[in-house]
Amino acid sequence: MSKTRLEAFSDGVLAVAITLLVLDLHLEPGEPGGLFAQLVAAWPSLASYIVSFLVIGVIWVNHHAVVRLVQVVDRTLLFWNLVLLMFVTALPFTTSTLAAALAGGDRTDLRVAAVLYGGAMTGVAVGFTVLQARITGQLVASGQMDAATRRRSLLRFGLGTVVYPVITVVGLFSVVAMLVALAALSLYYLFNQTGTSETGHLGDGEPS
Amino acid sequence: MSKTRLEAFSDGVLAVAITLLVLDLHLEPGEPGGLFAQLVAAWPSLASYIVSFLVIGVIWVNHHAVVRLVQVVDRTLLFWNLVLLMFVTALPFTTSTLAAALAGGDRTDLRVAAVLYGGAMTGVAVGFTVLQARITGQLVASGQMDAATRRRSLLRFGLGTVVYPVITVVGLFSVVAMLVALAALSLYYLFNQTGTSETGHLGDGEPS
Amino acid sequence: MSKTRLEAFSDGVLAVAITLLVLDLHLEPGEPGGLFAQLVAAWPSLASYIVSFLVIGVIWVNHHAVVRLVQVVDRTLLFWNLVLLMFVTALPFTTSTLAAALAGGDRTDLRVAAVLYGGAMTGVAVGFTVLQARITGQLVASGQMDAATRRRSLLRFGLGTVVYPVITVVGLFSVVAMLVALAALSLYYLFNQTGTSETGHLGDGEPS
Amino acid sequence: MSKTRLEAFSDGVLAVAITLLVLDLHLEPGEPGGLFAQLVAAWPSLASYIVSFLVIGVIWVNHHAVVRLVQVVDRTLLFWNLVLLMFVTALPFTTSTLAAALAGGDRTDLRVAAVLYGGAMTGVAVGFTVLQARITGQLVASGQMDAATRRRSLLRFGLGTVVYPVITVVGLFSVVAMLVALAALSLYYLFNQTGTSETGHLGDGEPS
Repeated sequence: MSKTRLEAFSDGVLAVAITLLVLDLHLEPGEPGGLFAQLVAAWPSLASYIVSFLVIGVIWVNHHAVVRLVQVVDRTLLFWNLVLLMFVTALPFTTSTLAAALAGGDRTDLRVAAVLYGGAMTGVAVGFTVLQARITGQLVASGQMDAATRRRSLLRFGLGTVVYPVITVVGLFSVVAMLVALAALSLYYLFNQTGTSETGHLGDGEPS
Repeated sequence: MSKTRLEAFSDGVLAVAITLLVLDLHLEPGEPGGLFAQLVAAWPSLASYIVSFLVIGVIWVNHHAVVRLVQVVDRTLLFWNLVLLMFVTALPFTTSTLAAALAGGDRTDLRVAAVLYGGAMTGVAVGFTVLQARITGQLVASGQMDAATRRRSLLRFGLGTVVYPVITVVGLFSVVAMLVALAALSLYYLFNQTGTSETGHLGDGEPS
Repeated sequence: MSKTRLEAFSDGVLAVAITLLVLDLHLEPGEPGGLFAQLVAAWPSLASYIVSFLVIGVIWVNHHAVVRLVQVVDRTLLFWNLVLLMFVTALPFTTSTLAAALAGGDRTDLRVAAVLYGGAMTGVAVGFTVLQARITGQLVASGQMDAATRRRSLLRFGLGTVVYPVITVVGLFSVVAMLVALAALSLYYLFNQTGTSETGHLGDGEPS
Repeated sequence: MSKTRLEAFSDGVLAVAITLLVLDLHLEPGEPGGLFAQLVAAWPSLASYIVSFLVIGVIWVNHHAVVRLVQVVDRTLLFWNLVLLMFVTALPFTTSTLAAALAGGDRTDLRVAAVLYGGAMTGVAVGFTVLQARITGQLVASGQMDAATRRRSLLRFGLGTVVYPVITVVGLFSVVAMLVALAALSLYYLFNQTGTSETGHLGDGEPS
């Protein structure tokens, strides 16, 4: 099967998911109190929009980097890609729940919303790491990568499977700290953590 | 006409349909009773989300596998592809109706919702089987497939045209059993049932 | 500029527009009266969904057929393509208004909704005809089409610029007759009316 | 990394964002007063729909023109592209807020909505100018563009970074004048302001 359609479908799902985030932004001009007060009160939605846009955007960047190396597109790979996409697609939902909990939920609601968001991100990290384990496994099998490089790559790229649960625990105490940590981890993944060079006649993966 | 745009348009429709499923997930933090109780009460939406995501995801995998073999893109093929996509696009609607019926409908509502969901899936199966019959017909005509292989392929791949109506009948008695059966049939279709090899320099279609 | 991105963007817009139609389908299980009665009462939404899905699907088929012949992608062409897409994108809105008018509007509401739908379709037809006039003009200029063929092609393909206004007038008297006429005109356009062969190593454009 | 997926993802996001604009168009046939009066009262939504469709459409045209020249796709470029897309994706929200403020907001609401819309457009202009500065920088470095051409190109193409703030100030006094100015600036950008020829075997970028 072809890598092209795997990429096209994944690009489509990620593009729709990232754009659906905007549906959570909504103001009602003409209501008593004024639009400016509403905009200020909507800071949880705006902050969540920015963080989740960055999160999904960086997921796309890394999906790009990981899938680029696929040697063989079999149905197992497609299945794990679907699992990854299912968790990413849930992010507009977990984002909107988190924003609403910040805006009007009590302490317990905030914790439930944080676990929901953190759980989906952990699902993303697990899905991504399985994908990358399979793909780098193909590379080792075909002699294009040595086993030590693969191990280092999985350690660096798989970091999220450990850090997202930790961030979720942080969220139990402070959702704002959780959002900051999520943005920081997205910046980590914005840089190349795949353990493979992205050069060639294309960039070196390190922002300049 | 070109296969590329047929694939691009279908990928786009399937990507949007699978992502729209998330719009059915919605919680209201700050309401009396708490978010956790709401989340528990929302199990029909969560279960339907997972099953329908799997269902549409596997539809995409098989669309990929079937269309890959197209020899001639004529307008009849495009028409049947549209019919298939129309039933797939209805799934976010039938999914959300089924989830709402599970959450708050009476016995009759549940049955109507089950027939609606099962009807759409039967439509998908019929559309897919017509597409595959036409495409494998092209392959037989051009001597790339023998008639016996085509017959076996249609029997295996067309199974859904018989099984989805059966699952619909199951849904009249238990919607939960229907969801389990839908997930099981999706797993069946996750494996290669097209009766054609998917190897080449690509995988063999059998998950390992 | 490249034809590939023109096609990719148009495919994306058409795929999203055709899938958004489903957002107009909505039932409320658990309400008094039962789901079945609701489903029956929702026939205008279901009928409009099917007609508009067919309409946008056939627009995609013909967009495909027309853009395939582009020789030069300049900014004027992109502008007219945007105009065409703007009217297509309005169809989920005009469809939902028409369905709601059928379900609960008075005579005048129905007429306003019919004019809105017919107006958008006329806009689609005008946009399409301008696009095709420019593209076949390029073909005549480069000697790949003679002027007589172009004239016949514009007459056949441009038919909608005349027929959609007529259908709109029909809609003033009967919206159901209008929906039937819209479906019939879509069937007309499902066949190849571009006045150019679609053969080559691809089909002949005539369903068999 | 590949330019193809950068283009595919951006096309997807822009296609979804431009199509989501239609969700803001909504009429309720059957309400007292009649559909025609509602349609007339909805002029802010209709005008905003047309202006924002043109705005995002022209953003797509220029994204196409700018990204076409990319020599090296590195992660910094992908980051700036994400920033650009984040502001574009916010446009359905700022558009709907502006329309609602026009329809029912007081003087202050209108000003807040105008600043929101103008702010997002300024963000788009800044993101675009950074992208183009980086891309033309690559061209100068590889000797395919001289520094003077790059300077002229940045002046012409970067105009929006100055003009959108001015339009925002205009919006403080009249939102209608702002919409007209936005449409005019989109027409400016509809023509080729990238300072590079778009010819080759493709058009010359100047509408004829």
